[in-house]
Order: sequence, then structure tokens, then C-alpha cells
Amino acid sequence: MTTNVLFAANDALWQDYRDPLRKALAEVGVDANLSTDIPAPKVDYIVYSPGSDLQDFTPYTRCKAVLNLWAGVENIVTNPTLDMPLARMVDEGLTQGMVEWVTGHVLRHHLGLDTHIMHQDGTWRHDPPPLATDRTVAILGLGQLGQACGEALAGLGFDVAGWSRSPKDIPEITCLHGDDGLKDALEKAEILVLLLPLTDETTDLMNAARLALLPRNAVILNPGRGALIDDDALLAALDLGKPAHATLDTFRTEPLPPEHPFWAHPQVTVTPHIASETRPSSAARVIAENIRRGEADEPFLHLVDRDLGY
Amino acid sequence: MTTNVLFAANDALWQDYRDPLRKALAEVGVDANLSTDIPAPKVDYIVYSPGSDLQDFTPYTRCKAVLNLWAGVENIVTNPTLDMPLARMVDEGLTQGMVEWVTGHVLRHHLGLDTHIMHQDGTWRHDPPPLATDRTVAILGLGQLGQACGEALAGLGFDVAGWSRSPKDIPEITCLHGDDGLKDALEKAEILVLLLPLTDETTDLMNAARLALLPRNAVILNPGRGALIDDDALLAALDLGKPAHATLDTFRTEPLPPEHPFWAHPQVTVTPHIASETRPSSAARVIAENIRRGEADEPFLHLVDRDLGY
Repeated sequence: MTTNVLFAANDALWQDYRDPLRKALAEVGVDANLSTDIPAPKVDYIVYSPGSDLQDFTPYTRCKAVLNLWAGVENIVTNPTLDMPLARMVDEGLTQGMVEWVTGHVLRHHLGLDTHIMHQDGTWRHDPPPLATDRTVAILGLGQLGQACGEALAGLGFDVAGWSRSPKDIPEITCLHGDDGLKDALEKAEILVLLLPLTDETTDLMNAARLALLPRNAVILNPGRGALIDDDALLAALDLGKPAHATLDTFRTEPLPPEHPFWAHPQVTVTPHIASETRPSSAARVIAENIRRGEADEPFLHLVDRDLGY
Repeated sequence: MTTNVLFAANDALWQDYRDPLRKALAEVGVDANLSTDIPAPKVDYIVYSPGSDLQDFTPYTRCKAVLNLWAGVENIVTNPTLDMPLARMVDEGLTQGMVEWVTGHVLRHHLGLDTHIMHQDGTWRHDPPPLATDRTVAILGLGQLGQACGEALAGLGFDVAGWSRSPKDIPEITCLHGDDGLKDALEKAEILVLLLPLTDETTDLMNAARLALLPRNAVILNPGRGALIDDDALLAALDLGKPAHATLDTFRTEPLPPEHPFWAHPQVTVTPHIASETRPSSAARVIAENIRRGEADEPFLHLVDRDLGY
């Protein structure tokens, strides 16, 4: 029997995903009708991206699951018409890309690369950086992405602290939790990495009071979600040197408007939401595996907890 | 009996090393007289740095070993008056620093960080880099430093090829050797890292012919030795885009003179010989261990092969 898979995202994504999805579905042995146009009552699965026109899930009466193309689900998880299982993307390529972006920017700040890149003025500034063992990196959020980044940084010798809502135990990472743990993490963070999911509790987590806890000359990296930071509080804090620099990959509005003060601020580096990019070939395999599981009555992978919001 | 250890290096190094060396010698139980001024016939060990005034080793008749403070020994190994064992520095901190510099600059070029650091112009350039698995890094030289860097890069997912004079077998690194192996390594090197010792055979290794083997848009990192590259050939090759960029930490003359064309060249980044910096605390422990071994008639660590020159 043919399985009807509706691709509900924009045209550009359809161009990127059509062939990889068909290939991945064939590889797992699912006889699928993959299309952007299937009558709602006949749809078995929805492959979804937050930019989709599909906002009312009510007519999809036989749909077994909505399979999100991205890791973040905050734009769909609160949709009151969504009563079927929702899976988020947990893509190895996505985790790998995040590890590369975070490791690259941690090393950039650790080694002081900007000085060398921007000041090739003939001055021999022989001022070796400390070793990674003498540099503390704190990661807020120890989910799939936070843990992978923490392990990569610890592997390079960094002193890594991690903070999460509930207690965790990860070798080579000093795991902190709760309000006291958050204060500890911020106070020791020479480089702070934000990898929390966006929830009511984490929105504006980095407000003026918490920014003030950072050591002088700390650096913030935000490849997580833009709204984890209170933008105005950050701009004010940069003037006080806590943090000394912010490298931001995610924003409340994307693309970040050209007139936003982050672009012109000398202590801010904007990167265009490239830290964690789902690659079609690997993401298609994750989607196909979940459809195979649904058809075989096996449990879905990567289901979202609707109460927690992630 | 007191062991006489002559510190033969400049005053600044004496200030840095005096206390760490005394502490390390005491820790291994050697009763040492560490000084910059000991009559030559009474000297048991010489702690040496290439900038030293000591060039004639003939009067040091009872000296058991010369212990070099740095990894590179090309300025001393050919000294005809040196007939006692010569040990080079193999310092964990030195290897660690090299791994950090190499990993940081590989990720900088892999992720295209310069574009983001230098062009904060309000343009949202959403152009994610490939994953590390799709990027080939070639390392020339698979000694202590080359192997450690290769393993770190492979751990981050890069496709790592390594080349050495004699065959090697290192898991996760594609090991190449000989003339054919060098050609293979250069032809696939999207990022090329030079970590060879400087010998007659490796001087000017990267000449015009070998630079021409690199893929278009390749990047060269040279944290090894300045003279591994023919400077004029490199400057000419950069104009052809092979390589597209060179990040150089070592030079034929250091500090690199302000008028040297490398400083002003837009495709060259100069860093001031900071990739591998011996840290006094860890280096002092290596020196002290070798003196302990000499006094206990145990074999010295890290002896230089005078014929090979490293």
C-alpha cells in the first residue's frame, strides 16, 4: 500500500529535499507517494518546516505524525490544532555542524585570532595565549547539541562546565543544574555558549542581572535561539566589558535587519544562522526512518514532549 | 653529590625558567647547582636555547648531555664541537598548544570565519560551509606534533591525510609516504599543514612545482619551520590562487621584519611564532626528568638522531 507523505514547506526546500527523501524512503523499503499536494484526509505523514502555510492540522484526520525538518519546534509545538505525534530533527550532520561552529568560534576567541586577522601591521605581538586547560568554557543546555559540543571541547583540553535544568552526569564535563548551578556557571564562564531550547523559562534568560555575573572579558556565543538573550541588556553589558564580545548566530528576527545595532557594534560578530544547518541527505534518512517505524508500528524516534515544549 | 647544571640561554629565559627548574629538579630528587655561571670542566648538564652565546662545546669535557629548551634543534645539531648526547624538548604543553593553533586555524578557514569577522556590513550571507567530513586536511610530517594534530582533526570529523618520510600506520589518518605519497597529499590538500622538521631535504620543500600541485583555493598553514617554504615561490603562487591563503607562524627571520611582503599581502596571515610555545612549568619537568635519568644511568628521553638531524 502506498504511503502518502505531504511535504509542507516552501518551494526552495522542496527542491533540496525531494530527491534525497525519495532515495531515503526507497532505501528503507517504504512505497511512498511524496508530494506537496495531497488531499488532507489522505495524508499519512507530514514533513514540516515552520515557514509552511500549513497552520491548521484539523483536516489531517489520518495523519500518524508530523516530522519537523528542524531541531527547534517552538513555532509548531504550541499549535492548538496539532494533536498527532510531533518529531523533531535529530540529524548527525546538524550536530556535527554545530560542533564545528562552536569549536571554531571558541578557538577563535581562545587564541585571539581576530587580532591577527585584522591587524597585519608589521608588529610582532609575541603574546601566546594560555592553554585550553587554563580556559573555562560554560555551556548552557546539555541536550544532544550541548553535550556533543562539550565533549568536543573537553577533548581539546578545555575546562568545560555545563548547565541544564535537571541534573546530568557526563564524563569530562562539570555538570551543574538549578539556580545555584546557573550562577556558578556564569561566574566562571570565560567563554559562554548558549544551547538551550527556547521555552517560556529560557526566553530572555540572559538578562542584565545574569550578564553581570560573567567575568570581565568573557565572550558569549549564541548558536541556540535569539530570544535566549535580552538584546538591549546585551548591548548595554557590552559597554561594560561583560561580555567583551558576543558572536551571535541566531536572532529574534531573521535575517537580522541591516539597521539592527548588532551589525555595526564593534564587539559583536553576526553569523547568518549557519551554525546548525540541516543537510538534506542526512536529514532525509532521519525522516524516512521515522516513516518506516510508523508503518511497522514501531515507536517514533525524537518525539517532542508537548508539555516541556521540546 | 651536587650536580652542576649550566643554564645557557638569554637572561629573559633565565628569569622564566630559574624557579620552575629548581622546583622540578627538587621534585625528582636531584641535588642540583643550577646556574648561568659554572666553570666549563665542572658542568654536568647544559640546558640550552639556540640564542645562547655558547657555541663551542669543546671545554665541557664531563658534560653528560645538552638539553634543548625547544623542539627544533637545527641551530645546534650541526655544531661540530658538540659530541655529547643532545635531547630536544618534547613537552606536553607544547604539543597541546600546537594542536590548539592548528585546530583553530583549520576551523577558521573551514568555516570561512574571516568573512564574518571582517564584513559585518548588514548583508545576511547564508552560505553554510561543508561539513568537516567533506573537507580534506593534509599534514606533512607525522612526528609527535603532526600526529597529535591529525588525531585532533580526525576526531572533529575531518578527512585527514598525513605524509612522512618513512611509512607510518596511524588509525583515522590516511598515511602516505615517499615521493608519490607527497604528490597525492598535495593534490588533495584543501588545507595543508606543514609540521616537518627542517633538514637539507625539507628546506624549500614547498617550491613552485609543489605549490602548483595544490587544489585551487587551498590554504597553507605553516606552524613548522619558515624555511620549509620558498617565500618568493609562495608569493607568486598566491597570485594564482594556489594557495588562496597562507597562515604563517614561522619565518626565515624572526621577528618577521616589518617591511617583509608577507605582512602587507591580503592573502597572508602572519602570527608571531606562537603556535607552539614551550611553557616553563611543563618544560622544566621534562629537563629535570632527563637529568634524573642521567644521574641514575637510565637512558635519556627524546635524544636527537645526529644523522637524521632531528
